[in-house]
Amino acid sequence: MLHAVILAGGRGERFWPWSRAERPKQLLAITSPRTMLEETVRRVDPLIPRERVRVVTGQALAEPIRKTLAELEPAQVVVEPRGKNTAPAIGLAAALIAAEDVDASMVLLPSDHYVPDGVAFRDAVAYADAVARESGALVTFGIVPERAETGYGYIESGGEVGRKGEIRHNEVLRFVEKPDPETARRYFEGRGFLWNSGIFVWRVSDILGALATHVPAMAEPLEALTRAAGGPGERDAIETLFEAAPSISIDYAVMEKAERVFVVRAPLSWDDVGAWSALNRVFEGDGDGNVLRGDVLGVDASDNIVLADDGVVGLIGVSGLVVVRTGDAVLVCARERAQDVKELVQALKAREDGERYL
Amino acid sequence: MLHAVILAGGRGERFWPWSRAERPKQLLAITSPRTMLEETVRRVDPLIPRERVRVVTGQALAEPIRKTLAELEPAQVVVEPRGKNTAPAIGLAAALIAAEDVDASMVLLPSDHYVPDGVAFRDAVAYADAVARESGALVTFGIVPERAETGYGYIESGGEVGRKGEIRHNEVLRFVEKPDPETARRYFEGRGFLWNSGIFVWRVSDILGALATHVPAMAEPLEALTRAAGGPGERDAIETLFEAAPSISIDYAVMEKAERVFVVRAPLSWDDVGAWSALNRVFEGDGDGNVLRGDVLGVDASDNIVLADDGVVGLIGVSGLVVVRTGDAVLVCARERAQDVKELVQALKAREDGERYL
Repeated sequence: MLHAVILAGGRGERFWPWSRAERPKQLLAITSPRTMLEETVRRVDPLIPRERVRVVTGQALAEPIRKTLAELEPAQVVVEPRGKNTAPAIGLAAALIAAEDVDASMVLLPSDHYVPDGVAFRDAVAYADAVARESGALVTFGIVPERAETGYGYIESGGEVGRKGEIRHNEVLRFVEKPDPETARRYFEGRGFLWNSGIFVWRVSDILGALATHVPAMAEPLEALTRAAGGPGERDAIETLFEAAPSISIDYAVMEKAERVFVVRAPLSWDDVGAWSALNRVFEGDGDGNVLRGDVLGVDASDNIVLADDGVVGLIGVSGLVVVRTGDAVLVCARERAQDVKELVQALKAREDGERYL
Repeated sequence: MLHAVILAGGRGERFWPWSRAERPKQLLAITSPRTMLEETVRRVDPLIPRERVRVVTGQALAEPIRKTLAELEPAQVVVEPRGKNTAPAIGLAAALIAAEDVDASMVLLPSDHYVPDGVAFRDAVAYADAVARESGALVTFGIVPERAETGYGYIESGGEVGRKGEIRHNEVLRFVEKPDPETARRYFEGRGFLWNSGIFVWRVSDILGALATHVPAMAEPLEALTRAAGGPGERDAIETLFEAAPSISIDYAVMEKAERVFVVRAPLSWDDVGAWSALNRVFEGDGDGNVLRGDVLGVDASDNIVLADDGVVGLIGVSGLVVVRTGDAVLVCARERAQDVKELVQALKAREDGERYL
């Protein structure tokens, strides 16, 4: 059976001040009236029914997430003892699923991405699942680049292995880090490079085997957790796993090293909604290119992204800005600097009384 | 005796959203911890003690002003039945003063200007008072231009008539309207042009005579008011005056037409604080040229004017902006468009629910 594991431990600070410590990006209704996390759960439905969905997150977000996803059993929201990047979280979820169904497969989903076409997405996931089951490979999702993006990692794909309609899968030549603008342009103009979406499909036995091979410190704790899952020793086994595991991403720990890796490519529109500036891609602006939410009045204002959760925001003679007013905070940011919202959050963290804005 | 008359009926909309209908610019503490109006009263003290100060304003502002200037008797805040520009308001105040002291003189002061050097200012007012008393002329204050300003009217001065130290008075050749940039540069580079400050000194009998001559509709009502002042018929006489009077400025009604007009010029720094952008002149910025008030955090932010009355404002990669957060409203305005805050206020007025932001 195909399960879904949604990683929802991120802090999503780049959407400050809308995002706050207890309301990070995945709990914001950015791309629709539903939170990004709810959208993620709905996106795989009905391919994967609710009872086969697990969400992995940290202690602080467990309750807010259980409230948001009230249709899940509390145990389906799995709590990491601490954040240690993606590899330990994936091992944790895979072991819990393997304890239930040793033959299961799973799709790993970030909780805060935007994929408008759910039908096409489920078709691609079902295809990837079939590939993973038949081949025993680890399958990653590649997105055909829509622009020379420097904010994403890339996958260089090799020869085609199979296809079904417009969905196909290829060998993976290599994973590459976020490129500089020059390299990004080369990747975009070339044909073999795909965006690394952070979405994966594999049999749980295959990812557990790969983790045991490539992150030896996790091998024994993962086996112990698979045995203890569902019983009184589960919590301790999870603790032991997170004590032993290094803080490492699944890309770096496993995907870049594993023997059999395929990349599935489907005609999908996808966005990681990584910063305020992404709203220009997700939403069509008004006649002046403004993306506005809330009560906003503009005089000669163009190409701005504005969010007002309360009160009114007035703009005069400005363009290319992100303006956000939520609660007790206002952000005014050049759109091309939207990545640097993190810097502002850091500055607030460094302040003695900054907590109350975070 | 020299009296002070402060015109405080203005709406000061260009400081929206800080300024609101019941808290216009003169009731804001813009240039100091005191309101502009309080600063105006203090500026003439001790040359003119509190008991010889009158404030003229509209019905809506009478109570807020009486609260702000609690040291004045309620009757010293004189209420216009309706706003009809400066000439009727000046006639009203002059008649009330004349009823008390036919030989009085008065200085007319806008309630919302910035004059940092109170001593120099009082010296200039005392000089102007002496000139007005000796000559029977209407005396206006001219300010030596500090830049090629297009936002002020100008006075072209003629030959020097007298002087005392650095203070002098000249003939007036003409009053000129706000110039275009080219003309403003010519005025600035020339020598005979002074900014029209809107500050005047005259004997009350002279201004009443000039109003009777140049605005005949006001002649009889002004005489009637002078007779009725202080008695039971005062309120009716004021009503009659404002019914009869045209809506007209003192410049246009009298100053441009009167026979004997002098301009006093003193080495004074002066600013009408006409819009948010004036704060760059009134205050020295921080190392990056930012004028900040309240809790403001900047990352690569320069030459901005920011006011936060509550909460925090974060700036990233922006320059030359006015950002104001007060109460339920946020303004983000290009600094050079600060005059157009009025447009935004108009747009709010045109909205059904706009009132609550005004």
